[in-house]
Amino acid sequence: MHNDTIVALATPSGSGAIAVLRLSGSDAIMIASTCFKSVSGKDLTKQATHTIHLGHILDGKRTIDQVLVSLFKDPNSYTGENVVEISCHGSSYIQQEIIQLFLRQGCRMATAGEFTLRAFLNGKLDLSQAEAVADLISSDNEASHQIAMQQMRGGFSSEIAKLRAELLNFASLIELELDFAEEDVEFADRTQFKQLIDRITFVLKRLIDSFAVGNVIKNGIPVAIVGEPNVGKSTLLNALLNEDRAIVSEIAGTTRDTIEDEISIGGIGFRFIDTAGIRETEDVVENIGIKKTFEKIEQAQVVIYLLDAVTSSAVEKSKVAAIEIEKIKNKFPQKQLLVILNKIDQITDSELANLRTHLEPHTVNLIPISAKTGFGVEQLTNKLLNLINTGALRNNETIVTNSRHYDALLKAFEEVAKVKEGLETGLSGDLLAIDIRQALYHFGEITGEITNDDLLGNIFANFCIGK
Amino acid sequence: MHNDTIVALATPSGSGAIAVLRLSGSDAIMIASTCFKSVSGKDLTKQATHTIHLGHILDGKRTIDQVLVSLFKDPNSYTGENVVEISCHGSSYIQQEIIQLFLRQGCRMATAGEFTLRAFLNGKLDLSQAEAVADLISSDNEASHQIAMQQMRGGFSSEIAKLRAELLNFASLIELELDFAEEDVEFADRTQFKQLIDRITFVLKRLIDSFAVGNVIKNGIPVAIVGEPNVGKSTLLNALLNEDRAIVSEIAGTTRDTIEDEISIGGIGFRFIDTAGIRETEDVVENIGIKKTFEKIEQAQVVIYLLDAVTSSAVEKSKVAAIEIEKIKNKFPQKQLLVILNKIDQITDSELANLRTHLEPHTVNLIPISAKTGFGVEQLTNKLLNLINTGALRNNETIVTNSRHYDALLKAFEEVAKVKEGLETGLSGDLLAIDIRQALYHFGEITGEITNDDLLGNIFANFCIGK
Repeated sequence: MHNDTIVALATPSGSGAIAVLRLSGSDAIMIASTCFKSVSGKDLTKQATHTIHLGHILDGKRTIDQVLVSLFKDPNSYTGENVVEISCHGSSYIQQEIIQLFLRQGCRMATAGEFTLRAFLNGKLDLSQAEAVADLISSDNEASHQIAMQQMRGGFSSEIAKLRAELLNFASLIELELDFAEEDVEFADRTQFKQLIDRITFVLKRLIDSFAVGNVIKNGIPVAIVGEPNVGKSTLLNALLNEDRAIVSEIAGTTRDTIEDEISIGGIGFRFIDTAGIRETEDVVENIGIKKTFEKIEQAQVVIYLLDAVTSSAVEKSKVAAIEIEKIKNKFPQKQLLVILNKIDQITDSELANLRTHLEPHTVNLIPISAKTGFGVEQLTNKLLNLINTGALRNNETIVTNSRHYDALLKAFEEVAKVKEGLETGLSGDLLAIDIRQALYHFGEITGEITNDDLLGNIFANFCIGK
Repeated sequence: MHNDTIVALATPSGSGAIAVLRLSGSDAIMIASTCFKSVSGKDLTKQATHTIHLGHILDGKRTIDQVLVSLFKDPNSYTGENVVEISCHGSSYIQQEIIQLFLRQGCRMATAGEFTLRAFLNGKLDLSQAEAVADLISSDNEASHQIAMQQMRGGFSSEIAKLRAELLNFASLIELELDFAEEDVEFADRTQFKQLIDRITFVLKRLIDSFAVGNVIKNGIPVAIVGEPNVGKSTLLNALLNEDRAIVSEIAGTTRDTIEDEISIGGIGFRFIDTAGIRETEDVVENIGIKKTFEKIEQAQVVIYLLDAVTSSAVEKSKVAAIEIEKIKNKFPQKQLLVILNKIDQITDSELANLRTHLEPHTVNLIPISAKTGFGVEQLTNKLLNLINTGALRNNETIVTNSRHYDALLKAFEEVAKVKEGLETGLSGDLLAIDIRQALYHFGEITGEITNDDLLGNIFANFCIGK
């Protein structure tokens, strides 16, 4: 099944200066050589690995394109098989023509993630590293990139592998005892074993706990902005965006018109969710709007209540705001709430003091800002980042972001807890061994020592074609 | 100005399995080596040209990505300078991070087409070949691809260069005569020279004439479809699309909902323009619609009048159609008109014969089809292709598609005509020489021997960044 040669476009579709097509399989170089005429007249099949060759892709007598062909020979390639990368001119027409040519020459279109699947099956990556490849490609901020990069380089795998190896060692010793059951020997030192189990429990708990952070970092921290139109939502988001020099670039030319978008602040992605505010009226339509606002707050982890400081009746407004803030606090006691007073560049100090008097009794998180001048935006940025426990991220600890890994870790934790209980109650070696084997099984699921076609199918179906 | 090292993304923007960044300049390899740590520990600056190296891009201690670095050493590269291509994971975040890193290391963002501009300035391509690179990237059908490919490989350039060399030879001989003016010698054989001028005139005329075909091939042949809603415009276009096996592919998953689109038929691009029909009424709004239809027909080279054969009053309809067809013929006598009777699978032979009787007196191009079953579609396809003079294309002759080249050819033609006239009227050598020099100037404009910054700026501004 995995011996045929696959082909796919590896670069994004659409027009660009160049596009890269990729072939992988034992016949990849042979097939490429039949459609390629090197400028120097060299035979592609006789060239060294990691070399590049200029020439033309020919369909019979017809020249499709002038290309660069890169050779990677088994096992020194991404997939561990023979791999050919063809760098052609970035016209969709040319890409299609070359792919169709290779299909006629006996290649097959790669399925989603099939190159990485082959890399896994050929032992170039373990399963959690392979999953990190997809995470890396979809990473759009520093934090998710850092976690994916660490996972891809094997940080998580080696942590799991180390626990597994130690546990496996004890499992072997206990199983050895079973063979000498009549002699009543203890190869496995029960005190050392208890210490190991405690250590494993500790590490597992840390990894499981890290998922709370990892999951929001991977998916972006949802922040609901509650506020009426024209209080300055867009300006606020652009001000936050400008705080972050890492992503904002002249190249991308980032400007935002919409409120509902993910932006990176201090390297962490925040998903901002626009709401229509919660002012209650008799109006049926408006009440539907309030219901929707509450639904959106429900999905969020952080709520920003945004208030315009400039109004002819600012005090009246702040009273209404106080009522609404209390309503949010009562309805969502678990959510982090920030109250932001915007446009303070347009009011006097005494007006600001007056507004503070009305609002501070209702919130510890009142932040006066001017999104326009940038005043107070840094304080807001720090506040948002403090809401996230980024300690693990800063310390470069392993953070779990994948829900499949999280599930396996939870199951392993349960089994280890059983082992611990068994040790404390003096459970017999054969029963202990069963629980240990179960824990080992769940460790193996993460790195792919234990796997099956369904699982692999599910994982790689989420990859893009060409990876 | 052109000694600094430039960097740009070479693949289309967006997410994909991989992305390729490109550096060019004398310091390209040196700069890349400061941010790259090879897995094998090798020093990038000491590696051979056309080799590939696996390693990591590092920003200080922080790993940005695992990448493949390809080296191309001056002069064996696209630009003729040192070139480094970095194949990274296809995340927009990673692409941006790496580009920003190189900008900090002293690279500059490439301007549009700057890699190809450098290739031209370094003598790797002449100007018409450089222009063909952009045409090749934007080619989306077989014909435009073939023409661009031929031009890029130097077919057009060598034809111009040959004419130029012969003319230059004679120019030198005539100018030599001027040095010996007192001796009244003729180094340049006037009979041979007349023959040469005739040959040049012939070739120039062919090239100039080819622009009529080349221009429509490059931009797509505009076809206005006149017909009311529900006569089957979309079905017709999908039927035409299915006739062409070259472009339709499972990979692209091509299906069309819109009428206004370019599709490739027999390797040639046709741009279909939807119109609202031309039925005249007293209704002001409808009359505006008719005005718009006429405007669209004006832009088209071919007009398809599409009629639904299935109707309770088909004969009535065909009478109206006859009036409308006459109206189009009178208003646009120069346009090619095809009358298509659709849905004939749903009528009887006698009904069809009846409709033919009413319509055939008004058109020689009546084509009964069923877009649904495919009947008659091949006939229509052939008809459309016959409207275009594809002889030059089939014979692999040089076709001019670039209006800049067309202008230069026209000017050269004028100058050559002057030379011819001068020869016939026995014009003196010094005056002949001036006209010949003018003709040579216009030849030089095409291939870039004669150029200036404004001209280069205009040409390369239309390229994408990264090419």
